[in-house]
Amino acid sequence: MPVRLIESLATTEPLAALFSDHSILSAMLGFEAALARAEAHVGVIPAAAAEAIAKAARPEALDAEELSRQALRAGTLSIPLVKALTAAVRAVDPASARFVHWGATSQDVSDTAIVVLLARAAGILAVDHQRLASALRRLSEAHAQTVMLGRTLLQPALPVTFGLKTAGWLAAIERSGRRMQTAFEDASVLQFGGASGTLAALGDRGIQVSEELAKQLGLQNPPAPWHAHRDRLAALVCACGVYAGSLAKMARDVALLMQEEVSEASEPGGDGRGGSSTMPHKRNPMACAVALAAANHVPGCVANFLHGMAQEHERGVSGWQAEWSTLASVIQATGLVVASMREVAEGLTVDAARMRANIEATHGVIFAERAMMLLGAKLGRDRAHELLHQMTRRALETGRRFADIVREQPEAAGVLSREEIDSLDVPERYLGSAEAFRKRLLETKI
Amino acid sequence: MPVRLIESLATTEPLAALFSDHSILSAMLGFEAALARAEAHVGVIPAAAAEAIAKAARPEALDAEELSRQALRAGTLSIPLVKALTAAVRAVDPASARFVHWGATSQDVSDTAIVVLLARAAGILAVDHQRLASALRRLSEAHAQTVMLGRTLLQPALPVTFGLKTAGWLAAIERSGRRMQTAFEDASVLQFGGASGTLAALGDRGIQVSEELAKQLGLQNPPAPWHAHRDRLAALVCACGVYAGSLAKMARDVALLMQEEVSEASEPGGDGRGGSSTMPHKRNPMACAVALAAANHVPGCVANFLHGMAQEHERGVSGWQAEWSTLASVIQATGLVVASMREVAEGLTVDAARMRANIEATHGVIFAERAMMLLGAKLGRDRAHELLHQMTRRALETGRRFADIVREQPEAAGVLSREEIDSLDVPERYLGSAEAFRKRLLETKI
Amino acid sequence: MPVRLIESLATTEPLAALFSDHSILSAMLGFEAALARAEAHVGVIPAAAAEAIAKAARPEALDAEELSRQALRAGTLSIPLVKALTAAVRAVDPASARFVHWGATSQDVSDTAIVVLLARAAGILAVDHQRLASALRRLSEAHAQTVMLGRTLLQPALPVTFGLKTAGWLAAIERSGRRMQTAFEDASVLQFGGASGTLAALGDRGIQVSEELAKQLGLQNPPAPWHAHRDRLAALVCACGVYAGSLAKMARDVALLMQEEVSEASEPGGDGRGGSSTMPHKRNPMACAVALAAANHVPGCVANFLHGMAQEHERGVSGWQAEWSTLASVIQATGLVVASMREVAEGLTVDAARMRANIEATHGVIFAERAMMLLGAKLGRDRAHELLHQMTRRALETGRRFADIVREQPEAAGVLSREEIDSLDVPERYLGSAEAFRKRLLETKI
Amino acid sequence: MPVRLIESLATTEPLAALFSDHSILSAMLGFEAALARAEAHVGVIPAAAAEAIAKAARPEALDAEELSRQALRAGTLSIPLVKALTAAVRAVDPASARFVHWGATSQDVSDTAIVVLLARAAGILAVDHQRLASALRRLSEAHAQTVMLGRTLLQPALPVTFGLKTAGWLAAIERSGRRMQTAFEDASVLQFGGASGTLAALGDRGIQVSEELAKQLGLQNPPAPWHAHRDRLAALVCACGVYAGSLAKMARDVALLMQEEVSEASEPGGDGRGGSSTMPHKRNPMACAVALAAANHVPGCVANFLHGMAQEHERGVSGWQAEWSTLASVIQATGLVVASMREVAEGLTVDAARMRANIEATHGVIFAERAMMLLGAKLGRDRAHELLHQMTRRALETGRRFADIVREQPEAAGVLSREEIDSLDVPERYLGSAEAFRKRLLETKI
Repeated sequence: MPVRLIESLATTEPLAALFSDHSILSAMLGFEAALARAEAHVGVIPAAAAEAIAKAARPEALDAEELSRQALRAGTLSIPLVKALTAAVRAVDPASARFVHWGATSQDVSDTAIVVLLARAAGILAVDHQRLASALRRLSEAHAQTVMLGRTLLQPALPVTFGLKTAGWLAAIERSGRRMQTAFEDASVLQFGGASGTLAALGDRGIQVSEELAKQLGLQNPPAPWHAHRDRLAALVCACGVYAGSLAKMARDVALLMQEEVSEASEPGGDGRGGSSTMPHKRNPMACAVALAAANHVPGCVANFLHGMAQEHERGVSGWQAEWSTLASVIQATGLVVASMREVAEGLTVDAARMRANIEATHGVIFAERAMMLLGAKLGRDRAHELLHQMTRRALETGRRFADIVREQPEAAGVLSREEIDSLDVPERYLGSAEAFRKRLLETKI
Repeated sequence: MPVRLIESLATTEPLAALFSDHSILSAMLGFEAALARAEAHVGVIPAAAAEAIAKAARPEALDAEELSRQALRAGTLSIPLVKALTAAVRAVDPASARFVHWGATSQDVSDTAIVVLLARAAGILAVDHQRLASALRRLSEAHAQTVMLGRTLLQPALPVTFGLKTAGWLAAIERSGRRMQTAFEDASVLQFGGASGTLAALGDRGIQVSEELAKQLGLQNPPAPWHAHRDRLAALVCACGVYAGSLAKMARDVALLMQEEVSEASEPGGDGRGGSSTMPHKRNPMACAVALAAANHVPGCVANFLHGMAQEHERGVSGWQAEWSTLASVIQATGLVVASMREVAEGLTVDAARMRANIEATHGVIFAERAMMLLGAKLGRDRAHELLHQMTRRALETGRRFADIVREQPEAAGVLSREEIDSLDVPERYLGSAEAFRKRLLETKI
Repeated sequence: MPVRLIESLATTEPLAALFSDHSILSAMLGFEAALARAEAHVGVIPAAAAEAIAKAARPEALDAEELSRQALRAGTLSIPLVKALTAAVRAVDPASARFVHWGATSQDVSDTAIVVLLARAAGILAVDHQRLASALRRLSEAHAQTVMLGRTLLQPALPVTFGLKTAGWLAAIERSGRRMQTAFEDASVLQFGGASGTLAALGDRGIQVSEELAKQLGLQNPPAPWHAHRDRLAALVCACGVYAGSLAKMARDVALLMQEEVSEASEPGGDGRGGSSTMPHKRNPMACAVALAAANHVPGCVANFLHGMAQEHERGVSGWQAEWSTLASVIQATGLVVASMREVAEGLTVDAARMRANIEATHGVIFAERAMMLLGAKLGRDRAHELLHQMTRRALETGRRFADIVREQPEAAGVLSREEIDSLDVPERYLGSAEAFRKRLLETKI
Repeated sequence: MPVRLIESLATTEPLAALFSDHSILSAMLGFEAALARAEAHVGVIPAAAAEAIAKAARPEALDAEELSRQALRAGTLSIPLVKALTAAVRAVDPASARFVHWGATSQDVSDTAIVVLLARAAGILAVDHQRLASALRRLSEAHAQTVMLGRTLLQPALPVTFGLKTAGWLAAIERSGRRMQTAFEDASVLQFGGASGTLAALGDRGIQVSEELAKQLGLQNPPAPWHAHRDRLAALVCACGVYAGSLAKMARDVALLMQEEVSEASEPGGDGRGGSSTMPHKRNPMACAVALAAANHVPGCVANFLHGMAQEHERGVSGWQAEWSTLASVIQATGLVVASMREVAEGLTVDAARMRANIEATHGVIFAERAMMLLGAKLGRDRAHELLHQMTRRALETGRRFADIVREQPEAAGVLSREEIDSLDVPERYLGSAEAFRKRLLETKI
């Protein structure tokens, strides 16, 4: 089941397979087979019919191409699928054919099928997520002491550690991952309501069949069908959006750190990654680029899904038909983001020396705040601010070390100890709670 | 604090007040006062300074108009605010002025202020939410037996009850409300990290000050500052989107039920609502219209917020500055949606007779499925389908009752009992699990 | 080249084919062949090399599945494609192989390929657009005199004609279609800039090669490469959004008119369209539903595209990789919208009798404005408003004709002529400029 | 008319004023006054009434706060406004009061008012646009010869000129500006249709009044009212989105160029701009940050607007009420983007020396493509690629000049002339068509 070219930048192989014709047919036929078994179990249809239906419900037996063509006409895949399955059953057991899809409606099969696929998607995403989280945890521990420039608004700020930065990525990704996991679980509910959501065709045995059907499919049985209430799926789409956004933040950071002029970290190359068709020297942040591109797909899909929630009455005129491809896009994009960032994290090269060098290249002016705190306490904030402004400008103009400028400024030097001046631009001395924060990020869950 | 005209269709009065100049200044100054107190408590700054700062931190003392002008230049409100507060403290206690905003950064005050406002927003929204939920619960109980057309793709389907329909609205709104509540709680975290998120200026007392500051403000103290990690706010914005979407579904349903040609329910009129400037007879679904318009604002804001998550390094170059007005828009729109639908639910007029009449106007063809189930079991699905197709068409063409057509069709009449035919189009006889579902929806929480 | 199931509700067959593997490879190889020919023409590479390259550039010769796999790694399809083409040329003419992709960069081939596909898409969309426009024009002419309720906020307002309504749809669709056509033309520009957009590798012959290449491909030659400037494509995506939105308005109207309770118009059924898997009587607005679902996809894609415009420096790190699938989605969805609405327009059934009956069912209260204008001029607006309010309420409560109520009201009857009262609720008498507007809509282009 | 704090990062002063209460009331009252005059001109109402209405239609005479409160109830500002104006007229001339808003509907006044405000917005935006364009043109001319690194995927690519880069920004901004200008002009159309878009209340004089009204207001008279056809406004919102996106690209580039590690250009500081509350050394790209934040607001609004286009029948139940604040947000954000980038362009500092230094810091490996083209022609692409790979790696590992490595490589040195090697890394020698492209960008309009 090849990934098509148009998709090759929009999904991963396992997720392309998840939404392949075969997988979709399997999920839909799986619903029909389980429905027949559940109804036989409860005594609504004969056991023999259930057996015949389950036996016929094989994707190989159907013509996906023809179904796709009919679906375009019918406006839903369920109608031609049920027709084809009925024909397949009739071919071997005419008496059982009438029990295909018994009491169900088109949306029951298409919604439940997507729910089943989503449950599988959760597992696929979880694999990359776990590996990514482990890799980040390792990076954070390994670089607990690696100092680097903090950067705000893309300008040098106070030093941080790469361990703290990594822990920040990790904690956000884990928080978002937990939210997404919850959303996957909440969305893992059977859809089964019949023509207008009352299971009227099953008389008073609707709930019993639902219970059994949900059990067979490994889904939760919701309090009632939810044909026109899409909040659980909407919450899932949103959770994917937040998760992809958290990963995109890491991707952007890595791409920026990889800039030639910064060169503090680099995603792994090799194996067809990151080369240029024309520039042999290039080492492109390709996995980050792929992640950012995939992450870019999600927010608009979220908006589309939310706009589609106002579905009319018992089944909307437009909303749910639009959801299938939106859900697939969102899941595929999210999966590509996490797979790419897993690759980045597992192979990330960190240049601690360059990190320190980039701090030093600021001549220590980033420690002006430190001097400010020290001087402010002695001279008052205003006077300290004035002095700092002069000394900082001087350091920037002369290219000399800020600590030396301070040393030579009589008013400043007069109130600071020699040790304070000497250690003014030692990054390790001005990390505040960086390490404490790092540990808390690795340990806490809120 | 008047709502401005441009906002008059985009918010409610309490939420306009929440984001008024006075309220914003209060929240920001509240942070500065609490910070000073927390730092004094821990011994970072003198108690006298904390007192002086807290005393000066009154919104009335500042010139909002001037601050707004400076904020436009500075690109953030925090910088001019801190400057103004410092000046105010200096005017009465020069020695304390230098301790204003001690160790904090601009984003600490603006983020914490918005978090404080969001916590208040949660309370404002909850009031309307609770009233709406109560009203829907009452409606559902009152109309447990009120039959009406189920409608799928805007066409008549099988009967449902208005109690079930209402319970469906309620359950979706309550699920979404719980998600939103959780998101509000998760987002209720202090922002306090100083220049690059390490609280370097506070030496080793950063976490102690954070704990105390969070306590003072009634917020959670997160594991670490989250300047560039916006997932909690993103999750909140998303939760508002899902909630507003769930309400929009109800709004659309009510607007459709109010159509002259349907006339099954009507939102309350009077008090300036729903009139037309030119057509005295009109009774417009104005509260629904306002709700739908407000709900339309949210999804795009969600997309914008998610797109903004990839914030660079320790503080992004663009992301967070964009969030303030997005958050305010989303909260205000969401509040307007729930306030409008609360009004709709509390005053909804239901015309049970018209509901039954609209069922009858279908001449019973909507019971073809019922006949299908009965006949299918006797004649096989295919033959039954064929017969039904003929009989339905006949009913539609002649305008006669479907049950009468069935009675006259020998093959059908031959296998159905008289009782089955007589009760064929009695809606109460074909409600399936409607009442069971209704009760489950009112009781269950998933 | 089958449409896959996941796409079967998201595109049409011709547009699925347009973005098929074969079509994409053809477009990309077409660029490489034309490039070689253009370079040979200008004398940059040998004529023999151009011939060899053009001969090898056949999609059949490449392994799409393998390319797709490599593209996933490379983050772009261009790199493996150029590699494969080079290998294919080398296999037959080693000396020519080095001239493959001479002076070009990955983005040159992928951007130009998409531009070529978009130009073809324009033609595919135009076919349905023209047929839709013709059908609407016919409908408008045929129903120039067919009166029906105007409806505002889903409530009955003054009468209009179906011809005017149709002309309104048509004019909006044609305006939007013209904008889209312009955007397609503006986007029909060659991308050719080499590694960083200067065509450095071609020395001073870059522009000459560009001119020739554009000519060969039937594209415009832009003033300069536009690797990081995506405004032309963004404008096209937007234009599709506005066009799809204009069609969605028509789709919503038709779905509402098809409501059983309204029954004024109906899209064509038959051929697998609009049936229900469980309800034989149903006549679903399926083409409208498909159109609305497809139209729902576009706005979020537009937002994603616009968010992706801030592409870094000479080629962005994420933006353009995200565009390919966004563009394909937008085009496919837009094509499905117009194809569906073309089908609706060409087969629309209009029930003029029901239209008139629905006017009559209001008992004439919709003519209160008319009475208002007549009475207002005689009695003053306030007194007239008061009287109208009473008379309208009376008509609504008694279910009697509004004109009769007016006739019996002495103050009103005293100032109106008998003819005025008799014709009060004749819809043809209160159409104002409906027919003039209809004609202007069919004739004017703004 | 102060900008409120919540808006202070979302608009400019002139655009805040444009959507102020006073401005909105003026525009709405302006419609009512012009309507009265036009109707008097055509003879529909007495000239005295028109005079009385025009005289009373002063914003100062109305209580904006009270109107805002009533608008919240009415769901539209028009109804309370018309009521208030009628009262004001009645107070001085009871007989004329009944002619206020004669024949018009709520949406006529609110739509026309927004159209009038949009026309003014066009002028406000144009001022900054023209200044920005002039500044960019000057920069492009001044730096036609200033070489700098081209950067693709944030990595060094071949050299470009800053003049070319600036010309690229300018051309995209001008193309987008022209599209926006066209969209403003196309949207500059009167809305005037009465209750259901037929101007029924004006009998056969509707079009005559429309013509005169449009003339009075300086707007185009469209073929027919467009209450439910929002394509012109949608196209305008989209055009703003594309324009803001084009500016955001420039903003992102400048912010990246301002990075300490790159330092090639810098936006102007001073006057409250770009400082940090805690770090005296900082020089933040604040105008770019404001521009990026504002640009982030637009795409989601575009999506919301497009989603709102499917407006029901003659006036939608939700769509247009949502548009007013969306339009204002989009215009205000767009205006802030262009104002910020105008400031950036007019004060941009360019460090040509650092640009050259950054090229040199690559040790010339970026010229590998040049060597590739030279060697490829002599040794075949494959061999050349191999050699280049080795030599590039060597240069990167040793930190020596790439040209020197080439000089020492016998196979390479054997086929290249001394001049070719000596000039290998002279950026001016490998600019291809950069200057030609630059000139074309400044001259061409497509």
